[in-house]
Amino acid sequence: MKHNYLDNIPLEEAKERFFSLVKKDFLLKTETVNTQASAGRVLAEAVYAKICSPHYNASAMDGIAVRAKDTYGASEKEPLILKKDQFVVVDTGDIVPKDKDSVIMIEDITWLESGEAKIFSAVHPWQNVRQVGEDICMGDMIAASYTKITPALCGAFLAGGVTSAKVVKKVVVGIIPTGDEIVPPTDNPKEGDIIEFNSSIFSSMIKEWGGESKVYSIVKDKKQLLKNAVLKAKAECDIVLILAGSSAGRDDYTCDIIKECGEVCVHGIAIKPGKPAVLGKIENTAVVGLPGYPVSAIVIMREIVRDLLSLYSGCQIEKEPTVKAVLQKRVVSSLKYKEYVRVTLGKIGKKFVAVPLNRGAGVVTSFTKADGILVVPQNSEGISEGTEVSVTLLKSKEEIENALIVTGSHDVLIDEIKDIMKRRGYSFSLSSSHVGSMGAVTAIKNGNAHLGAIHLLDGESGEYNLSYVQKYFSSGGAVLKKGVGRTQGIMVQKGNPKGIKSIKDIENCTYVNRQLGSGTRVLFDYLLKKNNMDKNKIQGYRNEEFTHTAVAALIAGGNADCGMGVYSAAKMYDLDFIEIATEKYDFLCHEESLENEAVKVFFEILESEELKKRLEMMGGYSFE
Amino acid sequence: MKHNYLDNIPLEEAKERFFSLVKKDFLLKTETVNTQASAGRVLAEAVYAKICSPHYNASAMDGIAVRAKDTYGASEKEPLILKKDQFVVVDTGDIVPKDKDSVIMIEDITWLESGEAKIFSAVHPWQNVRQVGEDICMGDMIAASYTKITPALCGAFLAGGVTSAKVVKKVVVGIIPTGDEIVPPTDNPKEGDIIEFNSSIFSSMIKEWGGESKVYSIVKDKKQLLKNAVLKAKAECDIVLILAGSSAGRDDYTCDIIKECGEVCVHGIAIKPGKPAVLGKIENTAVVGLPGYPVSAIVIMREIVRDLLSLYSGCQIEKEPTVKAVLQKRVVSSLKYKEYVRVTLGKIGKKFVAVPLNRGAGVVTSFTKADGILVVPQNSEGISEGTEVSVTLLKSKEEIENALIVTGSHDVLIDEIKDIMKRRGYSFSLSSSHVGSMGAVTAIKNGNAHLGAIHLLDGESGEYNLSYVQKYFSSGGAVLKKGVGRTQGIMVQKGNPKGIKSIKDIENCTYVNRQLGSGTRVLFDYLLKKNNMDKNKIQGYRNEEFTHTAVAALIAGGNADCGMGVYSAAKMYDLDFIEIATEKYDFLCHEESLENEAVKVFFEILESEELKKRLEMMGGYSFE
Repeated sequence: MKHNYLDNIPLEEAKERFFSLVKKDFLLKTETVNTQASAGRVLAEAVYAKICSPHYNASAMDGIAVRAKDTYGASEKEPLILKKDQFVVVDTGDIVPKDKDSVIMIEDITWLESGEAKIFSAVHPWQNVRQVGEDICMGDMIAASYTKITPALCGAFLAGGVTSAKVVKKVVVGIIPTGDEIVPPTDNPKEGDIIEFNSSIFSSMIKEWGGESKVYSIVKDKKQLLKNAVLKAKAECDIVLILAGSSAGRDDYTCDIIKECGEVCVHGIAIKPGKPAVLGKIENTAVVGLPGYPVSAIVIMREIVRDLLSLYSGCQIEKEPTVKAVLQKRVVSSLKYKEYVRVTLGKIGKKFVAVPLNRGAGVVTSFTKADGILVVPQNSEGISEGTEVSVTLLKSKEEIENALIVTGSHDVLIDEIKDIMKRRGYSFSLSSSHVGSMGAVTAIKNGNAHLGAIHLLDGESGEYNLSYVQKYFSSGGAVLKKGVGRTQGIMVQKGNPKGIKSIKDIENCTYVNRQLGSGTRVLFDYLLKKNNMDKNKIQGYRNEEFTHTAVAALIAGGNADCGMGVYSAAKMYDLDFIEIATEKYDFLCHEESLENEAVKVFFEILESEELKKRLEMMGGYSFE
Repeated sequence: MKHNYLDNIPLEEAKERFFSLVKKDFLLKTETVNTQASAGRVLAEAVYAKICSPHYNASAMDGIAVRAKDTYGASEKEPLILKKDQFVVVDTGDIVPKDKDSVIMIEDITWLESGEAKIFSAVHPWQNVRQVGEDICMGDMIAASYTKITPALCGAFLAGGVTSAKVVKKVVVGIIPTGDEIVPPTDNPKEGDIIEFNSSIFSSMIKEWGGESKVYSIVKDKKQLLKNAVLKAKAECDIVLILAGSSAGRDDYTCDIIKECGEVCVHGIAIKPGKPAVLGKIENTAVVGLPGYPVSAIVIMREIVRDLLSLYSGCQIEKEPTVKAVLQKRVVSSLKYKEYVRVTLGKIGKKFVAVPLNRGAGVVTSFTKADGILVVPQNSEGISEGTEVSVTLLKSKEEIENALIVTGSHDVLIDEIKDIMKRRGYSFSLSSSHVGSMGAVTAIKNGNAHLGAIHLLDGESGEYNLSYVQKYFSSGGAVLKKGVGRTQGIMVQKGNPKGIKSIKDIENCTYVNRQLGSGTRVLFDYLLKKNNMDKNKIQGYRNEEFTHTAVAALIAGGNADCGMGVYSAAKMYDLDFIEIATEKYDFLCHEESLENEAVKVFFEILESEELKKRLEMMGGYSFE
């Protein structure tokens, strides 16, 4: 079996090699477009005004055009009367006749019955006249080469008589999805089918960056087929992206094909995710082999392809700003790679806090949930908790600043409240993270969240939540708000093939657990202890998931026989359910946050009929 | 003659009235689109995953799928051999068979000739396997209502089996240009024709904000015609913008028509520019009467129509960030209005400085030249020089930070250098302002510009520039760099109808002057003095312009008989030219700026053949 190793070239060096290769014999393509439709395009040459604007002396207001010297001497005390041949009535924009040089405002005139005009003050020459060229003079450069045309510039060009503009042609980026298992989007894939969604992500990014994308049909993992597709795309596009097959495995042909038809300058970059990328050129077309994992490929798109597009567009594509934030959780990183860590951001008080998200290269939702990206430099072992870091924003600073931060135990109720909030038109957003009930207690204690969702069983009293609040907030600082009752139980495969009736029966089964610190885990551990069961005998005890639906999905998928979770998750996955307890799912609120507008709205929605209805549809909730 | 007065309602109140009127019976329009093309759209409802992603247990790498328990005990010292029926070769993304639960990386295997695999370490269950739902679990909310769909979200939807999305319909904004003198874009308008460019500005803005625009034909100032056009547009659009005719003059019908067909809630807003705006509604269509002056209308678009579009789009359209800057020049403002002042921004050292631009409502280039907008509150008399102000950015902060600031005397040479700079691909930009040669001296002295362009005649010695530098920078701090020789003279109308031969002849003519502090003005005043002429006898001495082309344009337009300026301007406007002097147009550079990369490039281009060629084409320049 073939296996080659990749290079590990630092990103900056890789870009330097790639861009110097691409710049050889590089020529910008241009076209001429109608000025009226030119906004957003990039000028290929400087634009000079062809005419003045205004191109004649125009009245700046409604009034009468006069000769200034005819008005000299007029005052409140000694008004002057202008004869009918001494003035011409003009509206804004009208020509000021050659023998006139100023305009008196209509509001400043008293009309006599004779048709003559009485005026109460003098005007000086050119007063209230927009003289020729006031805005634009013929011959003036209105904009330099490679300027991005704004709406106002579009207007200025037309005002200057420039009815067409030579602009840089839109960059055409070809996207070739590859892979034997890849299928077009569907809601009913066969086992082993991989839904092709990368091309949609990348073509949307290209569009966002001002380019045009051309998505080709999926190509199977046959070298000749892929080669044909690449050569066709090369002829039709400025840049070609080949999706997947960029590594060095047995079906990875990208690198070989580019080598055979052109030149490869980089194969393997010292970044994570994103390492297995290929950078090269075939004739005058830049070719990039993107990794198959979406997050890896997004990183290559953002760090390399965006700048490539800037080069081809003649204009720097704007990059996102950064903010300073305090890292909430240590990030461990390899010395070998520059790492791109997706983080959520929140603003509590005056500081931004950053929490790292799932780092899997295949987890595209780590990107959709992310508010920003933290870069850990190469040759660094990581960044410790509490460090102030610089984070590149993926959302607007305003949106992040206005977000209500809810953390703790996972329940779909939080998503539903977020949705209702949005539907009611509130400007603030809701940002949630799943760190378990104990994580919520810590977050509220440290002031890192507005609200914490908890369902913590006190093994001694059999009560929920209250004793924890008393213990961890003995000197106050937090308030517990009633949430909902939630039915917890054991989820088992449809038909209950293992015949599980109670917690005691799971010893002979495979189990999927929740993460340490989650309320469900606290409950499970409590039940094990109560029943004198040994956790080391539970197969899968260390297989931890972060949400109820993740547990349900694994049971439904056959990875485990059972797991604990809420009724609604079992129902959604059509699993059988053995009820164990009705727990209290409440909200812990930092005292200082009680006056926060978004927090008030959250509690309002929590008690609303609308939410109740939604939860009743899902089942397993109670409201007393 | 009819004349009504407008209201003067504070902006916030006007918006409140307008938005509460619009919100009555307001319903968002929705449509279903293919997810692959949904990026940039706004979700009309929450999106829940229909399937898990991955939807089967998938290998996370190239390797062999095994049962973890078969690997237990393997180590470097005591490798294990897996029989052929104990593993299955898998590539990344392949199904992990039901009877296997983990994957060993291809790199960690030694193949035996028998086809068996030697392994050197154990794996735990589910290691290197992307379990069902690792990324997305069926039933999970992927995005809430009214979320703007990002490229990554587009991918997440498809990964979750969501192939179409219900989104908010693109907002359709109708734009009706009006006016008897208004003509479609042309480079050859007749006298009195006003080129219709506002609709291009506004439709581009609408597009930038995610809406769709529909520009109607120009409507003459006939009430019934306009009424018909408005009713047609109302039926076809969500929002209708009527351009011009929004005031209370004799041909201003906007307000009356909206009143007759629907309701007007505001006519006249306490802002400047932008006062004569009409806000109303006809049936369920919001109707805005925009002022005819482009800058006034742009302000209404930015301050009102953008938020209106946000409402109709279900999603806040992002607004520009602000920066703190030190105001370089006092801004006087009326107590009656909230004022929007266009400013240029520059960063010198660590501080941003803001310089107010021309405040004419008709000067669209004040918007194209502006880097930001400064708001002077209502009830304020203005803001004094040196105050720290908050400026809304119209360009990216990065672009402003990287701009080379050149101030002082006006010459097209600066624009040409800017263009060459851009064409050579430098990332920094050039920002120039025309404050005259003396303004340049002050700016360099105060550290408010990198370079100052000067041509200052010393009346005593007849020499240029040097004595000024010696006087104003007696203790150093600035360096004078040689620029070009420039032919100054008297520009007169073609054929020289007034028979002007020298400065002495201008006493019987109308003159157009340059502003105080400009080098050309210094020269003119010097010549007057030398010839014992009285400036009070020069007709038009107080008619001041800021550029050579502006002076030339007024002479060509017949507003004046003559004026001083450079040969290239006379040539461009086909004027006759009486040569007076060849002056030295040099550059004053702040000592600290000499090491600035952009300054170095500027001087490099200043001495380049490319610039020389461009200037020779224009004429009147010399390079010794």
